Amino acid sequence: MQSSFSETKYWLRTARTISEALPYMRRYSGKSFVIKYGGHAMTEPELADIFASDIVLLKQVGINPVVVHGGGPQIGNMLERLNIKSNFIDGLRVTDQASVEVVEMVLSGTINKHIVAAINSAGGSAVGLSGRDAHLIRAKKLVSPKGDLGLVGDPTNVDPHVLTTLEQAGVIPVVAPVGTGQNGEILNINADTAAGAVASAVGAVRLLMLTDVPGVLSKNGSLIENLSVDEVRELMKDGTIQGGMIPKLETCIQAVEQGVEAAVVLDGRVPHALLLEIFTPRGLGTLITRKKN
Amino acid sequence: MQSSFSETKYWLRTARTISEALPYMRRYSGKSFVIKYGGHAMTEPELADIFASDIVLLKQVGINPVVVHGGGPQIGNMLERLNIKSNFIDGLRVTDQASVEVVEMVLSGTINKHIVAAINSAGGSAVGLSGRDAHLIRAKKLVSPKGDLGLVGDPTNVDPHVLTTLEQAGVIPVVAPVGTGQNGEILNINADTAAGAVASAVGAVRLLMLTDVPGVLSKNGSLIENLSVDEVRELMKDGTIQGGMIPKLETCIQAVEQGVEAAVVLDGRVPHALLLEIFTPRGLGTLITRKKN
Amino acid sequence: MQSSFSETKYWLRTARTISEALPYMRRYSGKSFVIKYGGHAMTEPELADIFASDIVLLKQVGINPVVVHGGGPQIGNMLERLNIKSNFIDGLRVTDQASVEVVEMVLSGTINKHIVAAINSAGGSAVGLSGRDAHLIRAKKLVSPKGDLGLVGDPTNVDPHVLTTLEQAGVIPVVAPVGTGQNGEILNINADTAAGAVASAVGAVRLLMLTDVPGVLSKNGSLIENLSVDEVRELMKDGTIQGGMIPKLETCIQAVEQGVEAAVVLDGRVPHALLLEIFTPRGLGTLITRKKN
Amino acid sequence: MQSSFSETKYWLRTARTISEALPYMRRYSGKSFVIKYGGHAMTEPELADIFASDIVLLKQVGINPVVVHGGGPQIGNMLERLNIKSNFIDGLRVTDQASVEVVEMVLSGTINKHIVAAINSAGGSAVGLSGRDAHLIRAKKLVSPKGDLGLVGDPTNVDPHVLTTLEQAGVIPVVAPVGTGQNGEILNINADTAAGAVASAVGAVRLLMLTDVPGVLSKNGSLIENLSVDEVRELMKDGTIQGGMIPKLETCIQAVEQGVEAAVVLDGRVPHALLLEIFTPRGLGTLITRKKN
Amino acid sequence: MQSSFSETKYWLRTARTISEALPYMRRYSGKSFVIKYGGHAMTEPELADIFASDIVLLKQVGINPVVVHGGGPQIGNMLERLNIKSNFIDGLRVTDQASVEVVEMVLSGTINKHIVAAINSAGGSAVGLSGRDAHLIRAKKLVSPKGDLGLVGDPTNVDPHVLTTLEQAGVIPVVAPVGTGQNGEILNINADTAAGAVASAVGAVRLLMLTDVPGVLSKNGSLIENLSVDEVRELMKDGTIQGGMIPKLETCIQAVEQGVEAAVVLDGRVPHALLLEIFTPRGLGTLITRKKN
Amino acid sequence: MQSSFSETKYWLRTARTISEALPYMRRYSGKSFVIKYGGHAMTEPELADIFASDIVLLKQVGINPVVVHGGGPQIGNMLERLNIKSNFIDGLRVTDQASVEVVEMVLSGTINKHIVAAINSAGGSAVGLSGRDAHLIRAKKLVSPKGDLGLVGDPTNVDPHVLTTLEQAGVIPVVAPVGTGQNGEILNINADTAAGAVASAVGAVRLLMLTDVPGVLSKNGSLIENLSVDEVRELMKDGTIQGGMIPKLETCIQAVEQGVEAAVVLDGRVPHALLLEIFTPRGLGTLITRKKN
Repeated sequence: MQSSFSETKYWLRTARTISEALPYMRRYSGKSFVIKYGGHAMTEPELADIFASDIVLLKQVGINPVVVHGGGPQIGNMLERLNIKSNFIDGLRVTDQASVEVVEMVLSGTINKHIVAAINSAGGSAVGLSGRDAHLIRAKKLVSPKGDLGLVGDPTNVDPHVLTTLEQAGVIPVVAPVGTGQNGEILNINADTAAGAVASAVGAVRLLMLTDVPGVLSKNGSLIENLSVDEVRELMKDGTIQGGMIPKLETCIQAVEQGVEAAVVLDGRVPHALLLEIFTPRGLGTLITRKKN
Repeated sequence: MQSSFSETKYWLRTARTISEALPYMRRYSGKSFVIKYGGHAMTEPELADIFASDIVLLKQVGINPVVVHGGGPQIGNMLERLNIKSNFIDGLRVTDQASVEVVEMVLSGTINKHIVAAINSAGGSAVGLSGRDAHLIRAKKLVSPKGDLGLVGDPTNVDPHVLTTLEQAGVIPVVAPVGTGQNGEILNINADTAAGAVASAVGAVRLLMLTDVPGVLSKNGSLIENLSVDEVRELMKDGTIQGGMIPKLETCIQAVEQGVEAAVVLDGRVPHALLLEIFTPRGLGTLITRKKN
Repeated sequence: MQSSFSETKYWLRTARTISEALPYMRRYSGKSFVIKYGGHAMTEPELADIFASDIVLLKQVGINPVVVHGGGPQIGNMLERLNIKSNFIDGLRVTDQASVEVVEMVLSGTINKHIVAAINSAGGSAVGLSGRDAHLIRAKKLVSPKGDLGLVGDPTNVDPHVLTTLEQAGVIPVVAPVGTGQNGEILNINADTAAGAVASAVGAVRLLMLTDVPGVLSKNGSLIENLSVDEVRELMKDGTIQGGMIPKLETCIQAVEQGVEAAVVLDGRVPHALLLEIFTPRGLGTLITRKKN
Repeated sequence: MQSSFSETKYWLRTARTISEALPYMRRYSGKSFVIKYGGHAMTEPELADIFASDIVLLKQVGINPVVVHGGGPQIGNMLERLNIKSNFIDGLRVTDQASVEVVEMVLSGTINKHIVAAINSAGGSAVGLSGRDAHLIRAKKLVSPKGDLGLVGDPTNVDPHVLTTLEQAGVIPVVAPVGTGQNGEILNINADTAAGAVASAVGAVRLLMLTDVPGVLSKNGSLIENLSVDEVRELMKDGTIQGGMIPKLETCIQAVEQGVEAAVVLDGRVPHALLLEIFTPRGLGTLITRKKN
Repeated sequence: MQSSFSETKYWLRTARTISEALPYMRRYSGKSFVIKYGGHAMTEPELADIFASDIVLLKQVGINPVVVHGGGPQIGNMLERLNIKSNFIDGLRVTDQASVEVVEMVLSGTINKHIVAAINSAGGSAVGLSGRDAHLIRAKKLVSPKGDLGLVGDPTNVDPHVLTTLEQAGVIPVVAPVGTGQNGEILNINADTAAGAVASAVGAVRLLMLTDVPGVLSKNGSLIENLSVDEVRELMKDGTIQGGMIPKLETCIQAVEQGVEAAVVLDGRVPHALLLEIFTPRGLGTLITRKKN
Repeated sequence: MQSSFSETKYWLRTARTISEALPYMRRYSGKSFVIKYGGHAMTEPELADIFASDIVLLKQVGINPVVVHGGGPQIGNMLERLNIKSNFIDGLRVTDQASVEVVEMVLSGTINKHIVAAINSAGGSAVGLSGRDAHLIRAKKLVSPKGDLGLVGDPTNVDPHVLTTLEQAGVIPVVAPVGTGQNGEILNINADTAAGAVASAVGAVRLLMLTDVPGVLSKNGSLIENLSVDEVRELMKDGTIQGGMIPKLETCIQAVEQGVEAAVVLDGRVPHALLLEIFTPRGLGTLITRKKN
């Protein structure tokens, strides 16, 4: 073959990428991936479109993605337009009855439907659920050391039946983080927490947390690719991990301790972040596993 | 046996009711019933609770109920609170973009979740869907002789896959009447129309329209128990059927002409209206069939 | 609705009967009911017809009835016509070889076929069996304290294979109480005893004993609705239960101790006794369970 | 090998018999054989025992035998003991109501149970049926050119459902030739006729008629091994076939014209007649097929 | 019947052979028989044709034969034609690299294909395998007390997956005794040893060793029909069993100790040896079982 | 994210390669690919190892590869060592009986086993077949315009049963191009022809012809990426396609006309040629389809 050197190099690189990606496909076929969706990946239209088409691609090659989304600026806007005031404690909204109704309405009636519509436009078939559908998420009132956060819940039981039913029917579930309290009341649930609880319940092979940072960074600012649960705890103690990353990683720890093979904190701002994380040997973000790999 | 006369009468009556009801159970086992839910049955709390527990009972004995609900005062209230003005033409709202977003938000995020929660509290397992989930209802812009009604849709295609999937998994679908337009836009759909289209698509054995009247009444005000499609058309011509009953019966006609065995207009104000209609030989309301029974 | 007060009352009563009956249908779907059939319910033509149609109704709604019948006046008549003499000890026939051949002939060839024909006429599909078919009932010679009763058997093994095969094929088995002895000989078996043994073997949810009395009566003559095994034993000790009711209740005790959920002694003279017992909350006769309900 | 010449001959003969028999086993596996049982094979105890064990052997190697038996001297004896008189026309009993009840009683209650017990003793699992069980044989009153034969029936419909159900459950059906008339009455049916109708209904591969003669004989008294339907008709015309063999062969003709692969008239007096007919290339009796083999 | 005495005797003998053979068919249906094929049965064309047609017959009646063949004069001839010299130690070839390639080539490419073609010509469907296909036989280098035998293997693991796959697809596997060593090298395996290992791995009901002698002979030269493992060991000790029969019987012992129901050493020179061994009560050769029968 | 520009470019390129490759995986899952294997790809050890591991990878991701191999220098060498002379006509060997036995022996016993061993070493499970196994390839003597080529066959019937059986069992078939003639004789078949016939018979989605050239070249020497059957025929007429490429393309045409979706002539000298052809949008060689794409 008279192909030039650069063409040969291109073919070899392509063959290597393919031969590396194929085994992941086989390994993950039929497995569930729970994806916490939020941040720039959700609010920037171009990234949102790539996200939707990547989700459809995952489904098409036999992976079962479950999307758990957060809220966005719409909730605050609606509360404002309706002239309902909220307090926040340490970044967590204090939620009264009037607020929680707006939260559910905006999460289930607006944001959730928006994501569903994007996935459907990209060629998939998504169904929007709230945690109140089919007893998906039962919760109790969150007891926070920081004070009474109102109608905010902590998941006590996730019934994955409706999720597995939809998965097997070729449908992609998109879940709004709302739960049912012990007296049937609506409880607002932190999206990271909801995603972690769902991942444990469906026996997900991965919990992917899309964030607006590259992952867990070392003190010198470089990305840490792999962490065991023990190492994460050490990095929390020595102050390497700080702020909003702490509850996120606590959710990751809980998930892997309850049977999820690994949790990943990754950068939702990178286009095709899901594909790169799932189908390349190195992955994109920080992988948290039970034991050191 | 020393039982009194009245006890004997009681036993005979009970045995008759049971022996009449049992064959319906067998006949309807595994069949779908689409129920248009609205009016007093939805807004009066006691009737709403009975409705929810009857739906659970139907599911438990092997019938597959699909609930399609209408809107309620909440939509108007929310539009008002958000200071969005709407016009109405012949009782149909003219829906602009701002309005349709509120309509979807309130239907999917508030009313739908309320019904789901009631069924779940009564011991069932319901999932709320909008017509936009899993490509359930595709629609085109309604062309009305009365003028441009804005973002209002007429169903062009109903894909029942997600409904049958949920039915087989023991889950009761509750559907908000919203559809996806040809360009992916949200379209508001009349709840009666949506219920009729869903009934045809799932091959329902009955389309039950809960209303706030006893059924179709003759000129002297008595309930007409059975009507063929031709008879309904005659009663429209001679003015016996008037007003809001006309589009409702047109939906019934369309459903039975597309394969639904019968449509029933019945009084949602009667407690246990569903049980009485389904499990007694006479039924409760007006039964519309293709041919004279 | 302008319905009169009495019509409303009628609807409510009907709805209540239905909503009470439906859950039993679900609970008993696919379960076996063994019915000891005899007495007036068998010999009065009108009651026999109602019995046959109730059996067909049970089958149609998913219950699996198994009928075990007793003998009737025909056996005595035939022995007399053939000039064969029998002795009786405590109401149990002493059965010699000539007699047992007549017993089998009349039970299997006349009474059994009569019941089968009635069920078939009522729209069902029944098959008559004797305990000798397909090794259904193996027995040993009964050892009675009252003396040698001849070719009378006590079941040692019931093989329910043919019963479950027929049940699953939509066929109603009707069993004549005859068994095969250890040397292949015919043994006559008490019908109550045979019914109890069959109920244990098929894992019946109920053993229903149709009798010519309302059930177990208290000393003041009123019906006792529920009894535990221990209570039955006490009532035998204190003389409340006497005569022919004693062996009948011993059979009930044995059945519930071998896994039948409950045994019921009920009045076969009440029309539709089966439906009333099975589909009403109170039931009709005396329910015997392992433990106090 | 130092084996003698005779041993070698024995082995070769044995190997040939086996290698000839094996293909029939394969060919007939899962197929139904309907066997008309009567005559010496039924009344001589030793032949009856061999018959029962051959039937069990057939079942064990995967063939589905269905036995249809005739009456025997017991019916006449019982009618006599009960002092019921019968008339006969051309060898067919004129059957009144009193007689038909005795016929059913003796066929179903005595003869049938006797055969069932013999098969069960030989290690099989048989169930006795009458044509009235499970709507097996529906019949109309026979119109005979010879006069009114009373309650004698001609099969109009055979429902093989219960037979195939039992076959698949490993059970051998033994059928008494009684049917249900159009008004539910008992009708006595000729056993050959019943066997032929059952063979057609189950799609039997063979209808085997056990008789007390070697088969169809030529005018010089030698056995005719194969006959086509046309040849049988010629032999009837030219008088080679006479008397009781005529209706028997008409039944054979009807069976093969309704889809039975072949009918065989064979000598029930030969021990193991069934095995020799089924598993040897030449067979034992006269084979009747649609077309010349 | 006017049949002569000799005809009657013929029929009785035939019926007995059939009724004896049929139960074996049932007992062995779906079971695997591993047949070590070699000696005269393989090299004499007439016997080879009978062998092939018997194998096809076994398959047709539901038995799953697996043929493991030995080498023949072709290997020696080919080594000679290619001028490759071999040494032998105690009848076992010392195999170098050049030899083992010829061994594989002739076993897999010539002898195996010859047997496959014969079975296919006889109406079966055979597939030739070597122990190297689908990881069928893994082996380690044989450690012989007699010295280094070169590339000769002892099976360490047999993976029967491909055999059961082919069996279930109606295909007869024919296996050449070659295995894969720990470094992927070809290893020549004794055919008796290979057959024994395959029999254990597929859970064969019989290991049939076709030889050129009648079986195990007593000191006075008569055939011993049954031997337990302990008895075989005694006969080895006391010198009754000698020479090449010793390793053959050690293979038999190992097979029955690893779950094969019985091993048989039988005379492949007898036509239809397989049929006679399998379908007659006495069998043909010496049956070796775990315990005394 | 502080990633450098080149890292971003790398991620984008990788994501694109993956997102392009994934849909092919889905599209081809469960489909058969028939690969004609020969030339440098077979004779150069490094390429042979890559080929084996690519085959294993295809199988692992759900594709069913079937390898049909050609002969190699070993056949000629062996004929020479055995001193058997052959004639060639237009590059096709004239095959006499002595030759064909060597051809089968070397193809089935040496080359085939070599490929099987390589695939097994790479982690797969391969089984070597010749066209004579399980009636895979029946052939008739080739009638060549060039003269009598001896025992050379043209496939008349391919029975894919054994191939699909092995595919479903997770096994990779490797086929030697030998067939069975009408009289059971061995026939040598051209490997391209055999591969084409196998591809048609299994309903392959692709017939991949590994060659030692880049594909079909235009007159100016550049690779032609797509050709319809009509275009191939034109290029043959105008002399663009010449020599050995002509019969190869005739085989391709025949395959696509018999239902294979496309045939590809591609360069087996490129490492990972299979992966690049199958999982990249452009592919590697010349794709021949029925109609212009």
